[in-house]
Amino acid sequence: MERTLTTEIGQHVGERVKLAGWLHRLRRLGGVNFLILRDRAGLAQIVLEDVSPLAHVSPESVIQVQGLVVKEPQAPGGYELHDAQVEVISPVTEALPFPIHKPRLKVNLDTFLEHPIIGLRHPSRRALFRLAAGVMAGFRSTLDALGFTEIQTPKLVGAATEGGANVFQVDYFGRPAYLAQSPQLYKQMMVTVFERVYEVGPVFRAEPHDTTRHINEYVSLDVEMGFIQDHRDVMAVAEQVVHGILDRLRRYHALELAELGVTLPKAPTRFPSIYFPDAQQLIYERWGDDCRGDPDLAPQHERWLGEWARETYDSEFLFVTGYPLSKRPFYTHPNPADPRYSNSFDLLFRGMELITGGQRLHRYEDYLQAAETRGISLEALQGYLEAFRYGAPPHGGFAIGLERFLMQLLGLSNIREATLFPRDLKRLTP
Amino acid sequence: MERTLTTEIGQHVGERVKLAGWLHRLRRLGGVNFLILRDRAGLAQIVLEDVSPLAHVSPESVIQVQGLVVKEPQAPGGYELHDAQVEVISPVTEALPFPIHKPRLKVNLDTFLEHPIIGLRHPSRRALFRLAAGVMAGFRSTLDALGFTEIQTPKLVGAATEGGANVFQVDYFGRPAYLAQSPQLYKQMMVTVFERVYEVGPVFRAEPHDTTRHINEYVSLDVEMGFIQDHRDVMAVAEQVVHGILDRLRRYHALELAELGVTLPKAPTRFPSIYFPDAQQLIYERWGDDCRGDPDLAPQHERWLGEWARETYDSEFLFVTGYPLSKRPFYTHPNPADPRYSNSFDLLFRGMELITGGQRLHRYEDYLQAAETRGISLEALQGYLEAFRYGAPPHGGFAIGLERFLMQLLGLSNIREATLFPRDLKRLTP
Repeated sequence: MERTLTTEIGQHVGERVKLAGWLHRLRRLGGVNFLILRDRAGLAQIVLEDVSPLAHVSPESVIQVQGLVVKEPQAPGGYELHDAQVEVISPVTEALPFPIHKPRLKVNLDTFLEHPIIGLRHPSRRALFRLAAGVMAGFRSTLDALGFTEIQTPKLVGAATEGGANVFQVDYFGRPAYLAQSPQLYKQMMVTVFERVYEVGPVFRAEPHDTTRHINEYVSLDVEMGFIQDHRDVMAVAEQVVHGILDRLRRYHALELAELGVTLPKAPTRFPSIYFPDAQQLIYERWGDDCRGDPDLAPQHERWLGEWARETYDSEFLFVTGYPLSKRPFYTHPNPADPRYSNSFDLLFRGMELITGGQRLHRYEDYLQAAETRGISLEALQGYLEAFRYGAPPHGGFAIGLERFLMQLLGLSNIREATLFPRDLKRLTP
Repeated sequence: MERTLTTEIGQHVGERVKLAGWLHRLRRLGGVNFLILRDRAGLAQIVLEDVSPLAHVSPESVIQVQGLVVKEPQAPGGYELHDAQVEVISPVTEALPFPIHKPRLKVNLDTFLEHPIIGLRHPSRRALFRLAAGVMAGFRSTLDALGFTEIQTPKLVGAATEGGANVFQVDYFGRPAYLAQSPQLYKQMMVTVFERVYEVGPVFRAEPHDTTRHINEYVSLDVEMGFIQDHRDVMAVAEQVVHGILDRLRRYHALELAELGVTLPKAPTRFPSIYFPDAQQLIYERWGDDCRGDPDLAPQHERWLGEWARETYDSEFLFVTGYPLSKRPFYTHPNPADPRYSNSFDLLFRGMELITGGQRLHRYEDYLQAAETRGISLEALQGYLEAFRYGAPPHGGFAIGLERFLMQLLGLSNIREATLFPRDLKRLTP
C-alpha cells in the first residue's frame, strides 16, 4: 500500500490508508488508546485497540500504521484512524532528553542546543525553519524577476580584505587562508560581469562576543547591482525584496505563521526614511538623549526610531540613510553633497538593524585614495581592484542576515533559536 | 531618459533610446565607426560619427550612449543606433591583459585565472555561469515540487567526522575546528526533522591533488530523504532532479546553450542501471580488462561503461549500483542480499561520475557496529548519533558537484573553467 501523508487522510474517508512517521505521543484516555503520529506534513490521531507492539518503545520511535479513515470532529484535523495496526520500523528505547509532544516546547535554550536534533522536531521549530526556507525562496524569486543572476563565490580567501580583525584563519596547505566575512568584494567584482547578482551563503565572523544577537557563522542574503544613480536605487530594490519575502510567507506559509502565532509586519509599499543627522536631532528632541555628532546609533536609538516610524508612518520598517563615512567600510561612496556622510543606509526592522547597504565607490582612483586614507594594503586587493581598473559602473548593494530576519519576525529573544546548529564561543557540535 | 537594454532596442525602432554598458569594441570599417556596447543582456552596435569622447579610453570603459534605433539586417541582432552621442562613465586607460571582444575567447587558462574578472566578462563565460545559476534553480524547483525543505547547515564543524584526511583545519578561538567536507551528517540528521531536505552550498576538500578534475572548494547540491524502501527510491529522485535541471536549461537558457554550442545530453525517462560486479564482468568480456574483484572502477572503466550505455540504451547517463561496502563511507547501507556490496550508486554522465548516493544505515545499533568495525571514534559523533538513537527512518540521498556537472555538460577540459574563482594548490586569490 502507498503511504499517505497525515494531512491527506481527509481525502480517504472510509478507506484504509498507511501512515508512516514518528510516535509523537501515546496516551490512554477514558479507556481508549490515542496514538499521535507525526510526519513531515503534520499530525494524525489513531485509535489503537492493541498497543502491544508499542509496549517496549519510547516516543520518537519510527512507526507505520494502517487503519480506516473516519471523520471525527474531536480529532486534530477532523479525522482519525480506527481499526488500526501499528508496526515499529526504528524502535527508540531511551527516554528523550526533554519532551517534544506538547503544543508548546518548554526547555531552556542550553538544553535545547545540546540536543538540537530532538528539539528541532517540535512542530514549532519545524515551522520556524520552514519559514527560513520561505525567506530564501522569496529573496531569490524577487531578484530573479528583476534580472539578477545567482552566484556562488569562494569562502576560502587569501587575505582578510575587509579588515584583519574578526576573521578565522585556516591552514591552507601550510600557508594561511581566511574564511570570508562576507561575499562583498566578490559580488562587487561580479557586478562588472552580470550587473545584477545575488548570493545566499555562509559567512564567518570571529567575534568573541557572547551575546543574544551574535553567532560566528550565519547565512547572508547578498545583493549587488550596477548602473544606479545612488543608494536610493538600491533601497528601492531592498524594499522590493522585503515585500517579496513577506508575500512569499503570506502565500505559502500561512500554516507555519499560525503555528508560531506570527503576525506579518506592517510594511508600506515605500518604507519611510530618515537622514542620519536628522535621526539624531529627532532623538535629542523627542527623548532628550543628545547623541548629535556621535558616529553611530546605539541599540536604544534604533528602538526609539523604530517606535517613531510605527507611530508616524504605521511602518515597522525604517531606512536610516547617510551614516558617517568614517564608520563605514573603505568601499563606501561618500555623499557628494556632504562627504562627511555616506551614501549608505541601514534598514531597521522593529527597531533593530536588518539590512546594511549603500552605494560603493566605482572609480579605480577612488579606491587607491580610500586605501591610502585608511592605511589598507593594496597588495592583497589586486585581484579585486582589477574590476575597477578595467571598468566598473556606479553600483551598490545590501545584505540581509537570515537568522536576524527570523529573530525579529518571530520576536525571538536569542538568535540561536533561529539557527539550526549555531556556532558560538561554546558550540562547534553537533 | 530611462535606460534600455541592448536586447530590447528592436521594440523602439524610430525612437531615441539610452543604452549603458561596457565598451566591448570600437572599430573603423569602410570609413564608419562601429561601437559595440555590452550590457547584462547582450551586445548592440552603434554607428558613431564623433568618436572624440572615446579618444583616450580603452575597451571595457563603462559608457552610456543615446541614439536613434534603426533596423539594420547587417547588424548583430538586426538593429543598430544612429545619430548617437556617447558619454564615458568610468574610463579605462590601460590595455586589457587579454582581449575579450572576439567571438571566441583565446587565452590560456593560467592567464585567465590570473585575471578572472576580465575573462568572465566574455559572452561565452557569462553564458557558462548563467547556466550554473540555471542548474541550481532547476535543482531547487524540482525538489520543492517533491515536498523537500531547503536547509543551511554549518560549514565550521568540531570534528572531521567523515575521516580525518583531506580536511582543512581552522583556528576557532584557540581550538581546532574543521571545514565541512560535505553536509552529509547534517542532512541525515535533518531527515529526522523534515524527512526530505536539500542544500546548496560550499564544501571543502584539502586534497593536495593538482589535476584537471579537482578543486579544493566547490558547490555541492545535496539531497537526503526518508521513508525509502532502498537506494532505488533515491535513484528515482536523482533521475527526476537531472531531468528537472535539463528541462530548466532547455526552457530558460536556450540563448546560453546556443552561445556555448551545447547540445543537451540524451536522457531517457528512466536511466539504465548496471550492478557493480556485472559492470566489471562486462568490461572484462568487452574490453578484455580483467578488473573483476577490484574494489572500485577506474576512470577508463567509467568511460567504457559510458560508451556502452550510449550504444545500448541511447543514454548519456548510467547508474552503477552496489559498490563494494568496504570502499564506501561508514554510514553506507549494505545490500541485504549480499553484504559484501552496498545499496549505493554512482550516476555516470558521459562516462564520468556525476552523482554519488545511496541508502544509509538508520538503526542506532548499526552505527555503533559500523564505527567499531571501521575504528571510528564515537565521541566526536555523539550529536550526529542522537538522530538515530531517537528514531530515524530508512533513508538515503545523493550529491551533485555543480562544477563537475557543468564540466561534463560543456565538455570542458578543466574543472577550473566551471568555477568563478577556483581554489587549488596555487590559487587563493582573487
